[in-house]
Amino acid sequence: MSSQLGQLFRISTFGESHGGGVGVIIDGCPPLIPLTEADLQVELDRRRPGQSAVTTPRNEADACEILSGTYEGKTLGSPIAILVRNKDHRPEAYSEMVDTYRPSHADYTYDAKFGTRNPAGGGRSSARETIGRVAAAAIAKKVLAHFCPQIETLAWVKSIQNIPANVDPLTVTSADIESNIVRTGDPAAADEMIARIKEVRSEGNSIGGVIECVVRGCPPGLGEPVFDRLEADLAKGMLSIPATKGFEVGSGFAGTTLKGSEHNDPFYMDGDTVRTKTNNSGGVQGGISNGEPIIFRVAFKPTATIMSSQATVTKGKEDTELKGRGRHDACVLPRAVPIVEAMTNLILCDHLLRHRAFCGE
Amino acid sequence: MSSQLGQLFRISTFGESHGGGVGVIIDGCPPLIPLTEADLQVELDRRRPGQSAVTTPRNEADACEILSGTYEGKTLGSPIAILVRNKDHRPEAYSEMVDTYRPSHADYTYDAKFGTRNPAGGGRSSARETIGRVAAAAIAKKVLAHFCPQIETLAWVKSIQNIPANVDPLTVTSADIESNIVRTGDPAAADEMIARIKEVRSEGNSIGGVIECVVRGCPPGLGEPVFDRLEADLAKGMLSIPATKGFEVGSGFAGTTLKGSEHNDPFYMDGDTVRTKTNNSGGVQGGISNGEPIIFRVAFKPTATIMSSQATVTKGKEDTELKGRGRHDACVLPRAVPIVEAMTNLILCDHLLRHRAFCGE
Amino acid sequence: MSSQLGQLFRISTFGESHGGGVGVIIDGCPPLIPLTEADLQVELDRRRPGQSAVTTPRNEADACEILSGTYEGKTLGSPIAILVRNKDHRPEAYSEMVDTYRPSHADYTYDAKFGTRNPAGGGRSSARETIGRVAAAAIAKKVLAHFCPQIETLAWVKSIQNIPANVDPLTVTSADIESNIVRTGDPAAADEMIARIKEVRSEGNSIGGVIECVVRGCPPGLGEPVFDRLEADLAKGMLSIPATKGFEVGSGFAGTTLKGSEHNDPFYMDGDTVRTKTNNSGGVQGGISNGEPIIFRVAFKPTATIMSSQATVTKGKEDTELKGRGRHDACVLPRAVPIVEAMTNLILCDHLLRHRAFCGE
Amino acid sequence: MSSQLGQLFRISTFGESHGGGVGVIIDGCPPLIPLTEADLQVELDRRRPGQSAVTTPRNEADACEILSGTYEGKTLGSPIAILVRNKDHRPEAYSEMVDTYRPSHADYTYDAKFGTRNPAGGGRSSARETIGRVAAAAIAKKVLAHFCPQIETLAWVKSIQNIPANVDPLTVTSADIESNIVRTGDPAAADEMIARIKEVRSEGNSIGGVIECVVRGCPPGLGEPVFDRLEADLAKGMLSIPATKGFEVGSGFAGTTLKGSEHNDPFYMDGDTVRTKTNNSGGVQGGISNGEPIIFRVAFKPTATIMSSQATVTKGKEDTELKGRGRHDACVLPRAVPIVEAMTNLILCDHLLRHRAFCGE
Repeated sequence: MSSQLGQLFRISTFGESHGGGVGVIIDGCPPLIPLTEADLQVELDRRRPGQSAVTTPRNEADACEILSGTYEGKTLGSPIAILVRNKDHRPEAYSEMVDTYRPSHADYTYDAKFGTRNPAGGGRSSARETIGRVAAAAIAKKVLAHFCPQIETLAWVKSIQNIPANVDPLTVTSADIESNIVRTGDPAAADEMIARIKEVRSEGNSIGGVIECVVRGCPPGLGEPVFDRLEADLAKGMLSIPATKGFEVGSGFAGTTLKGSEHNDPFYMDGDTVRTKTNNSGGVQGGISNGEPIIFRVAFKPTATIMSSQATVTKGKEDTELKGRGRHDACVLPRAVPIVEAMTNLILCDHLLRHRAFCGE
Repeated sequence: MSSQLGQLFRISTFGESHGGGVGVIIDGCPPLIPLTEADLQVELDRRRPGQSAVTTPRNEADACEILSGTYEGKTLGSPIAILVRNKDHRPEAYSEMVDTYRPSHADYTYDAKFGTRNPAGGGRSSARETIGRVAAAAIAKKVLAHFCPQIETLAWVKSIQNIPANVDPLTVTSADIESNIVRTGDPAAADEMIARIKEVRSEGNSIGGVIECVVRGCPPGLGEPVFDRLEADLAKGMLSIPATKGFEVGSGFAGTTLKGSEHNDPFYMDGDTVRTKTNNSGGVQGGISNGEPIIFRVAFKPTATIMSSQATVTKGKEDTELKGRGRHDACVLPRAVPIVEAMTNLILCDHLLRHRAFCGE
Repeated sequence: MSSQLGQLFRISTFGESHGGGVGVIIDGCPPLIPLTEADLQVELDRRRPGQSAVTTPRNEADACEILSGTYEGKTLGSPIAILVRNKDHRPEAYSEMVDTYRPSHADYTYDAKFGTRNPAGGGRSSARETIGRVAAAAIAKKVLAHFCPQIETLAWVKSIQNIPANVDPLTVTSADIESNIVRTGDPAAADEMIARIKEVRSEGNSIGGVIECVVRGCPPGLGEPVFDRLEADLAKGMLSIPATKGFEVGSGFAGTTLKGSEHNDPFYMDGDTVRTKTNNSGGVQGGISNGEPIIFRVAFKPTATIMSSQATVTKGKEDTELKGRGRHDACVLPRAVPIVEAMTNLILCDHLLRHRAFCGE
Repeated sequence: MSSQLGQLFRISTFGESHGGGVGVIIDGCPPLIPLTEADLQVELDRRRPGQSAVTTPRNEADACEILSGTYEGKTLGSPIAILVRNKDHRPEAYSEMVDTYRPSHADYTYDAKFGTRNPAGGGRSSARETIGRVAAAAIAKKVLAHFCPQIETLAWVKSIQNIPANVDPLTVTSADIESNIVRTGDPAAADEMIARIKEVRSEGNSIGGVIECVVRGCPPGLGEPVFDRLEADLAKGMLSIPATKGFEVGSGFAGTTLKGSEHNDPFYMDGDTVRTKTNNSGGVQGGISNGEPIIFRVAFKPTATIMSSQATVTKGKEDTELKGRGRHDACVLPRAVPIVEAMTNLILCDHLLRHRAFCGE
C-alpha cells in the first residue's frame, strides 16, 4: 500500500526508473470529466528533464498514454490507467551502484528493508516515480475545475540556497512563474538564482531551497477534523516528495515567536462572506479550509548526487569511496514546482470528494 | 474516516469535550502484549490539565477504563476500546460561543463544513480529543517494546517563544525532561521558560514554541517508499495535533542553505553496522529508517484563546467582539510533549507491523 | 482491521461477551441526521435475548448509551460511539471451556490464531458482538431514510429446518413479520415453526434455516463495478454473521439450471421508468442496483451449542468429551432477522455515500 | 475504490474490453518472490477465449507484460504492474448496444449510475476485466507457495445446468480437472456436459452451473473474527465474479435442514494435530481456518448473451427488441474455473500477510 494515496480519489503509482515504464491508476475519478492525453502532457512537460538550462541535460519526452477509463474525451468513472514508457535504458551507467551505496540516497535503506533493489537509476526512489503523480494530478485539477472552477493552485521557488524571492501569494500569476526557467514567482530574483545553480553545477556540487504554494479560491469546508486535517494531509503529501525536509503552513516556524494577540486572525464580514484580516492560519483552521488563501512552504535539501568523491560503504560492508557521475539536476526546485502543485491538487480533490459524500447537497 | 489513523495498528478516536466521554478503539494490536490500565494512565497523566503551575488550573483525573480486548493482563488480538468519562460539564461557560466565532479556533470552519457543531468546549477540536491518541499510543509503546525493546522515543520543548533550549538528542534522558514542569530537555533553560509562560498568562496572552523529538534505537527498514515514507507519515501525524504549524526532519529548513557536499551524510562501517558520520537525513533516507536517530521538530502556534477583546463575527454574519474567559493553557507545549511522543509511537508501531507483514522472517 | 466495515460509513465494533461492554464507533455519518438513543433501542430490542418463548431465556436489557457525535438530537458529523454494558458476568458458567474446545465453535481456531482467547462466552465470536452492528445499522437506516425516504429493508424467516414459508417479497410487511415470534413472513407457517423449535430444544438439540431479505425502493445506481458489487458486499456482510453458511441473490443456486432465455430479465418501460418483467437478477445487474427489489437469501446452520455429549479435544491436545450447558437459542433465526436487516442497511448506506461522492449532483 | 481488493496484498485492476488494454497493479507483494511473465501466462492461458471447443471461438493471445516491480526474476517489494494489450478492436460489432440495453447485462445500470458507458464490449463489466485478477492471482499463488508450500487451491465444474459431477474434494487432482475441456473434476461426466453445452450453443441459448473449490493444506489461523472472516471475504470474492448468483461454504444451504447433533464436527487428535471427523464447517470456524480442507461452491447463471430476440428498452426510453450476435461463450463455467481459483488465492494471500503482521513469529 506504499504506493497509494487518497481515500476517494485514490491513485496507485508504479514503475522503476528502468524497466517497462512508469505510471499510475486513478480509481475514484467521477464520470463525465473532460479529459485527453493533452491535459496530462502539459503538466508532464513542466516536470520532465531536459526542459531548460538549469535542469539535467538528459532529454526524455515522457509521452503518456491513457490506457483506460475514458470514452469520447470524457471520463467513464472507471479506473484511469496511464503509462509512460521508459526510454534509453542505460543500466551500465549505474554499474558501481550495484555494490556501493550512494550517500544520502535510498540505496542502503532499500537493501536494509527489502533485501533487494533495482540499482539502475534509483528504482522507486527515482524522480521518475513522480511522473505518475503529476499525471494523476492533472486529472485532479480537471475534477477541481469541474466542481470548483474558482480554485487555483500555484507554486513557485521561494528561495534557492540563501537567495530569497519576494512574492505576494495573493497576486502572483502563473505567467510570472513560468516567465523564468527557475520558476520563481519573483522574476527579479531569477537571474541570480539561475547563475547560482549554474555556478554550483560547474563545481560538481548541488543546492536546495524552499518552494511556496498558494491555493486561491478554495471554498470553506474542505478538510476533516482530527487526523485528516487539510494541513496534515498536505504535510504528508509534501514530505512524500523526494528530497523534502520540512513543511510549514501559514505563520509556520516563525509564528512560534509571536504572542496569541499578534497571531490570531480576527474575523470580519466582507459583504456576506466571513473573512479574516490576517492569515497566520494559512487558510486552514481546525483542519478545515476557511476560505482564505491556503499558503504553505516546503523545504528541499540539496540534491544528493554530487560529482566529488565521498566516503561510503559497500553492500559487502566495506568502507570505500564513491564519486557521482552521469547527468543530474544540481538543483531540483525548478522541476519540483509542478510536483508541489500536483500533490496539492491530489489532496484537494480527494477532500472535495469526501466533502461531497458527507456534506454535499 | 476523519478520526482513524494507521493501516494495521489502526486507531479510531471519538468524543467531544462535553458529552459522555472521549476514547479510542485500537483495531490491530497483536495478541499477548502485556497491558493494564496503569500502562495507559501513566501517559494520560502527563497529558492531563492541572498537572503543574504552567498548565491550566482545570483539574481532571482523566481516569481510563479498558472496555475490551484484554484478558488476564494481556491483549487478545481483538479491538481494545478505552473510555475516559467527561467530568464537570459546564456548557454555560461556553454560552457566548454558540453564536460567536472565536478567532483562530475551529468554530467557524466546523459550522461552514457541517452546518452544526457542539459549541461546548470546542467539540472535536478540543485538546481533550488527544486523550484517545495518548491512550492508544501507550499501547503502541508496549507493542514496540515487545518487538523492538531497544526503541526509545523522547520529545522535549526545544523553544518557548524566543527562548531556546540547548539539548543533545543523542544523550537527553526522560529524567532530564521530566525534571522540570515545562518539559524542556535543557533544565538550565527551564526557569526562564516558566517565568515567561507565567508572565504571558498574567497578561491574558499566550505563546507558542517548538518541540523536538528523537527516536533512538529504531532498526533500519521501517517506512515505505513513495507516499507512506516514514517522515511523511510523521509529518501528517504531527500536523494533526491541534495548534501545529510546521514540521521538519533532520536538517529541515536550515538544510536548504547547505550545498550537497555539506549536507550529504557519509556512510562508514561501525563494526558490522552501517552508520553515517553526520545525520542531516534525520535518520530517514528514501522514506525508510537507516538506523540513525530519527530527529524532527514541530512548530506550535500560541494558544488561540486569550483574555483580551478581539474582533470577530457571529453565526448570523454580524461583526462583533469577543473576549476569552475560563481556564486555559497560556502555552500548550508542556502538555504537548507527550502528544508528540504519542503520535510518533503510533506511526512507528504501524510501520513495524507493516514491515512484519511484507518483509518479516 | 478485522472489526471494521465500510468505506465511508465505516463502523468499528468492539467488545467481548464478558468484560466492560460491547459497542461500536461510526465514523462517517453525515451531519444533521435526527438521532436519539430510542432510535437504536428499538432495533436492539429486536435482537436481544429473552424476548420471546423461542429465544434463550437469558434476559438482558441491552440498554445503549450514545457517548459522542450527537448534539441536540442530531448528528454532528463526528464519530458516534455507542456503548452497551455487559451484565451478569458469570464466567464460572464457562469453566470447562477454558481447556476444552466446543465442537463447531471458534474456541480452537481462536487459540490456533492468537495463542489466547477469552473463554467466557465466546469472546468476539459471541452473538453479543452483533449488538454493535445493530446499533450502527439503526443509524444507517436513519441516513437512508434521510436521503432516500422510499427505501425499505425487510427480512424474514424463509424456512426453519425443512418447514418452508410462503412469502411474497413484493408485498410482505413489517407487521406480518413481527406478528409472530419466529419472525416468518408467512404467519400461517409460524405455529409449525415455533412447535419445531420447542421440540428440538426439549431434545437438547438445535436447528437452522434460511432468512430471506428484500430491499424495496432502492434507486438505480447503487453499487460499484468489479470488486465492490452490491451483491458482493452483501454476500460478505451476510457471511460475516455468525452461523451463516451461504448466500444467494435473485435466482441463486436454482437459477443455475435455467437456460439464458428463461433467466434473462426483459426490460420494459413503465411510464418513464425502466423496469424488468422478471427479477432473476435480484435487483442487481453488473454489481449495480437496477431499481427492482433487491432479493437475497442467507443460510444459517443449526446452533453449535447442544445439550448432548460430543467428542472433542482439550487445549492440551487430549481427546475428551463435552456436553453443552447453560441457556442458549435452539434456533438463532428469529433473532438473526434484525441482524440480516442491519447488515443490509449498513452496506446500502455505505454505497449511498460512495455514490454521492462520485456521481452525486 | 471499486476496482481494488485486499488489505495488504492489494490489487487494482483497470481496463475496458476495448481501449489500450487491461491489467492490474499489485501493491503489497513481498520482496524476493521468484516471478516471471511465464508464471502469469500459464494462468492467463487457462482463462483466455478460444482455448477449446466449448469456449467462444474468439481467439486472443492475452500476452502479458510485467512493467515494473521485478528485477532479475524476483519481486522487488515495489508495485508490480501488468499490462495485456487489447487486440482486434471491433467496436462496430457493438453498434446497436450504444442505444439499446442488453437484458441482464450491465448496460442499463452503468448508464443509470455514471451517466455514460463504453458500449463496446461491456466496458468494465466485460469478462476481459478478469485478466487482471488472474494475473495478480498467479503472483498470489507464488507468494503462498513461498510461505506455505503445502497449500493447494483447486476448482472444478460441479454441475452444468442439471448435470452433476461426482467429485471427492479430498483427492481430486489438477490433472483430473484439466483432462477435459469442461474442467469438471469428474471426467466421467465431461462428455455429457460438453454435449449439452454444444447443444445449447447450437440453439443460440446459454446455460449455467456450479463450480466447487477446495483449498487443501491451509494452515489453521488464517482469517479474522467479525467482518473479515475467511468465508466472508471468499463470499465477496466469488460474488464479484461476473455472472455469479450464490456462494455456500461447507454444508451450505443443505446444512440448514440438519440438526445440531448432525451438523457439528467433532474434534479428535490425529497424532499431534487437531482434526475434525466431519467437515460441515468447510474448513472455517468463527471465520478462521481450522486446518481442514476449505470447501465452497459458487453458482453461475446462464450467460446473458443469447442469439434470440428479446424485449428491452433504449437509452431514449423506448420499448424495443434486441437479438444478440457475435461470438460468445454459451457457458462460462470452463473459463470461470481458473477465475474462482484466482479469487481464492488472492484472498488467502491477503489473509496470510495479515496473519504475519499481527500473529507472525
